[in-house]
Amino acid sequence: MKITLLDGHIKEYKEPKSVVEIAGDIAMSLKKKCLGALVNEEVVLTNHTIIDSDCKMEIITEKHDLYKSITNYTAKIILMFALKTIYPNAEIVPQIDDLDLDEFSLFFNLPQGLKFEELKSVEELANKIISEKTEFDFESNKNKKFLDELKNLFDKKEYQDFLIKENEKRYKSFEIASYKGQDFFVRNAILKNTGELYKIELTQLTGSYFLGDASNPMIYRLHGITAPNKEAFEELKIQLEEQKSNDHKFIAKNLEIFHLDPIIGQGLPIWLPNGTILKQEIKKYLMQKEFEYDFIQIETPVIGTSDLYKRSGHWDHYREDMFAPMQLPKEEMVLKPMSCPHHISVYNYKQRSYRDLPLRFAEHALQHRYESSGSLTGLERVRAMELTDSHIFARPDQVKEEFVRCFNLIQEVLETFDIKIDYLSLSLRDPEDKHKYFNDDKMWNEAEAQLEEVLKELKLDYKKMIGEAAFYGPKLDIQAKTALGHEITVSTIQLDFLLPSKFELEYVGPNGDFLRPIMIHRGLVGTYERFISVLLEQTKGVLPLWCTPKQVMIIPVQQNGDNTYVEKIRQELKKENIRAEIDKRDERLSYKVRDAQIKKIPYQLVIGANEEKNNDITYRMYGSEESTTIKLEEFIKMLKEIIDKKIYA
Amino acid sequence: MKITLLDGHIKEYKEPKSVVEIAGDIAMSLKKKCLGALVNEEVVLTNHTIIDSDCKMEIITEKHDLYKSITNYTAKIILMFALKTIYPNAEIVPQIDDLDLDEFSLFFNLPQGLKFEELKSVEELANKIISEKTEFDFESNKNKKFLDELKNLFDKKEYQDFLIKENEKRYKSFEIASYKGQDFFVRNAILKNTGELYKIELTQLTGSYFLGDASNPMIYRLHGITAPNKEAFEELKIQLEEQKSNDHKFIAKNLEIFHLDPIIGQGLPIWLPNGTILKQEIKKYLMQKEFEYDFIQIETPVIGTSDLYKRSGHWDHYREDMFAPMQLPKEEMVLKPMSCPHHISVYNYKQRSYRDLPLRFAEHALQHRYESSGSLTGLERVRAMELTDSHIFARPDQVKEEFVRCFNLIQEVLETFDIKIDYLSLSLRDPEDKHKYFNDDKMWNEAEAQLEEVLKELKLDYKKMIGEAAFYGPKLDIQAKTALGHEITVSTIQLDFLLPSKFELEYVGPNGDFLRPIMIHRGLVGTYERFISVLLEQTKGVLPLWCTPKQVMIIPVQQNGDNTYVEKIRQELKKENIRAEIDKRDERLSYKVRDAQIKKIPYQLVIGANEEKNNDITYRMYGSEESTTIKLEEFIKMLKEIIDKKIYA
Repeated sequence: MKITLLDGHIKEYKEPKSVVEIAGDIAMSLKKKCLGALVNEEVVLTNHTIIDSDCKMEIITEKHDLYKSITNYTAKIILMFALKTIYPNAEIVPQIDDLDLDEFSLFFNLPQGLKFEELKSVEELANKIISEKTEFDFESNKNKKFLDELKNLFDKKEYQDFLIKENEKRYKSFEIASYKGQDFFVRNAILKNTGELYKIELTQLTGSYFLGDASNPMIYRLHGITAPNKEAFEELKIQLEEQKSNDHKFIAKNLEIFHLDPIIGQGLPIWLPNGTILKQEIKKYLMQKEFEYDFIQIETPVIGTSDLYKRSGHWDHYREDMFAPMQLPKEEMVLKPMSCPHHISVYNYKQRSYRDLPLRFAEHALQHRYESSGSLTGLERVRAMELTDSHIFARPDQVKEEFVRCFNLIQEVLETFDIKIDYLSLSLRDPEDKHKYFNDDKMWNEAEAQLEEVLKELKLDYKKMIGEAAFYGPKLDIQAKTALGHEITVSTIQLDFLLPSKFELEYVGPNGDFLRPIMIHRGLVGTYERFISVLLEQTKGVLPLWCTPKQVMIIPVQQNGDNTYVEKIRQELKKENIRAEIDKRDERLSYKVRDAQIKKIPYQLVIGANEEKNNDITYRMYGSEESTTIKLEEFIKMLKEIIDKKIYA
Repeated sequence: MKITLLDGHIKEYKEPKSVVEIAGDIAMSLKKKCLGALVNEEVVLTNHTIIDSDCKMEIITEKHDLYKSITNYTAKIILMFALKTIYPNAEIVPQIDDLDLDEFSLFFNLPQGLKFEELKSVEELANKIISEKTEFDFESNKNKKFLDELKNLFDKKEYQDFLIKENEKRYKSFEIASYKGQDFFVRNAILKNTGELYKIELTQLTGSYFLGDASNPMIYRLHGITAPNKEAFEELKIQLEEQKSNDHKFIAKNLEIFHLDPIIGQGLPIWLPNGTILKQEIKKYLMQKEFEYDFIQIETPVIGTSDLYKRSGHWDHYREDMFAPMQLPKEEMVLKPMSCPHHISVYNYKQRSYRDLPLRFAEHALQHRYESSGSLTGLERVRAMELTDSHIFARPDQVKEEFVRCFNLIQEVLETFDIKIDYLSLSLRDPEDKHKYFNDDKMWNEAEAQLEEVLKELKLDYKKMIGEAAFYGPKLDIQAKTALGHEITVSTIQLDFLLPSKFELEYVGPNGDFLRPIMIHRGLVGTYERFISVLLEQTKGVLPLWCTPKQVMIIPVQQNGDNTYVEKIRQELKKENIRAEIDKRDERLSYKVRDAQIKKIPYQLVIGANEEKNNDITYRMYGSEESTTIKLEEFIKMLKEIIDKKIYA
């Protein structure tokens, strides 16, 4: 038996050995520090696991990247013990979850209702287990034995099935850890002694579907955090607080951007008044840019017959992302997953000549995608979305110029939002994946070669990504890094020879012969939903003035006084389409000023008798302590300039 | 037996009498002129029909309003004879159709394919029958006898069923007319002699569903026109030509406004580039007005769970107008038929106080209505439509003021489009119709009284219309007359006590108690689809400059010359958001000028060497023969002013 270590060294044994024995053999100090091992780069084992065949091995210690998954998993096991002790009828539910996140989660069923506050005793018991520095009893198990035990551990057939499947796929062996006579299945490396953790803190109790699939029953998800020592624990808490304030869901809630309502439907955001202003201001800007770049707006229905999508290939290659169809007496209709076939209908509604091309149809198009309910997240992953879409129908000799036009437009728009392009991804098909991609090697080779040629001519740097293409053709994805360092695909330009052929698109050439156009699919800033989630995170909610929902808050000094002057200010601002409100609430001046700061309103006007007398206003900007008094006309002129130039201010 | 005549006179008979006998009894001259009768205001009989019980009767003569239906029906019968003679395997299909229109229609089945041109011989035979001055043989029939004959006349069970049902509902007796041994069922008064018609002209052959229902088979619909004399016939032809040029479908086709594509779906208009500009310009204007009137825009999903519509009452009262649902694993979703419940979700997403009200949510909202395929007409009747919608949530003491606000906004907007309010319809429920209206007398009485009170306070004239209310409450419909004299409901303001109660809406009152708001539903100009169809008909396609899709056509004098100056003109216009195109086609100047006139482009610029030298442009306005040469800047300034002021020019 040969064990190949990370540094290339090979250890040879005649007999099977446990991970911890091998670690001790490598270095005496490693035996003590060993927490588990990565075997053949994919399997995480506990340190008691017996190795009996050739493999690559990496010993996991406290310094290892996977250490967090070990502390998290240990905390999860401790929490399991505590929960089962206090709620003996709790049913632990296996779930695929990432163990190397900042938070860990425990999934379970309970016949009765449960509030987060009631779990205080479980948290206390878990921390008692830690303070008792308990050793886990391990019993090494092979696959076979574990599977036999499974039935007793999880009595629901669906959980057993899931574990057996997961087990076959991912794990080669397991441990059973026992505590006070209760056995638990352990699938990840854990610490040997509970005292190696500093503390467990429960953070929230939420609902979750088994396997993240809404057709499964809803189960409890208990979230917690842990760390091996006080410093790491405090640091983690600060970090989580920071993350929360950077999360678009929290920012959006504070700014009242969107709302989700289960009776309307899952993953269907409602744009609240502030969110609607933000979205519509961005849309106005994008449409203006499209007008400047000679794109032509069209509007197409949000549904189509399933025949349409059978013809386009979406039915074969994209079916699982589509909503269930509507059965009408003579037609079967579906919510449109993409607008390409609709735009093709506009191309096809009359004969086109070579002089008509290129035709650049743009649509800010609502489309639907049937995401699993478990993956839905705020505005980031939704089931209804508005895409900044375009399809260009071009002659072969126009493709390069049109590609450049798209690229320049995207660059200009991203600059306005201060989003920097990180790198370009040339997304190609995986030739092995016959299900995802339509099967025509010649067409793929031609399209991929042409796209790459354009990139080379433009002297653009790019990374090739295999298996990232659309089903109908290769694409250039424009990857950006947000202020928080997240990498996202904001924009995309795609080359398509397939749909023109499937729909037999034609134009009359200079000699009267019928020729086939090429389609370019262009996403300007992706969907409004995703883009706004990025924008909120990047700006932390301090949006540029031109698209900020509430631009000015007028705060009268006199409570219940004569409002003539503040009303006049609001009307003058409104005439210039500046969005201003008067805070008439029955609150103290200082409260209103602080509230306007919390709501990140760019300009707060405090208006008293002096301002009125001189036709002045006194303003304070968001984040500033300084007040400035100027004439109302000057103030309006200043704001108009900032708005027109789309300056960040 | 007592027969009450139109003038109140009563004729009494001991024995049954035929219509024609009664006519002769009234006046000898009437016997000759009698073409049929209206009995009890609802039944149209032929003059041979026997009357045997008390009734009100009106004799139909050439001067009667129903005369057109008699000439049309006679022509239809003649055409039936002619068609059956030339195509013996043609199967005449009964259909409900209006007989007093300018055109009449004959519905039939034919196993083989058929082109309109092939029907020339049928038309010729029909006119031969007319020139032969044939008398129809009539045989008076009672209901019973007709039903017995029915099986032989229409061999398809569905036709028989339909006729039996229609017969029970509408007709008390029938005639069988025969011509050359063939019997035909006659359900309307007809002329006695075919020679009383001047001519029959076939106009088109289209497809139609039996009973206008897409789940029935498609049948042929043959359209024709007729009249009793040459003058009337010529007049009718001119009138039809005029109507055609006033029909929004023809105007829209010429201007390339919308497109219908069966593979996308029936009744789902695609807005072509020109239509999209028109729609979006109108939307910009309406949203600007809503901003000025302090409405707040929101955007809500186009689908909702069926639970939502069960709660709102749409499921019970509006189900047949809704699309079939989508069955998802855990939810049943439907395309939203109305946005009220979605706007309620926005109201409900946080606690509201009496100080927050009124909340005026506006949405230009896409909604779907499952119209029968037979009733779909251009943009006028569609299955997907965007409504200029709003819901105001108000305190009881605010209702009047909010009502006035809506009314003023509507008035201002309609004036901009030069649409005059004809009258106001106070649309009330029919208290007998328990299916259409929710059943709560107290609520209805309160809502109807309050709405009427507001109208009285505002000193507005109105007509009461029973049975025209929405299922949830009474409404004020604003009826306008278009330039063509069509009466349409453009705008509506509705009072709703029901939905606030169904969704348990609340606000916190000044004393901390929970109170219920009242909802006002407001349609600003109805749907874009319907409104634009009206606008096209009213303007005959000569739209006001601000919303006209192509505002300027630039025509270079020099074919294939240097385009620098015309390009410069286009760019300067574009900078000011003026929509201009250059006609670069390989055509003569005069052709291009004429083409721009046909397409109703408001300004045509003809640009030659002189214009270039002096930085001038020469323009001609649509419909004018006059050319004017001015500086480019002056021209731009002039257009901007016309556009900003929304002047018709």
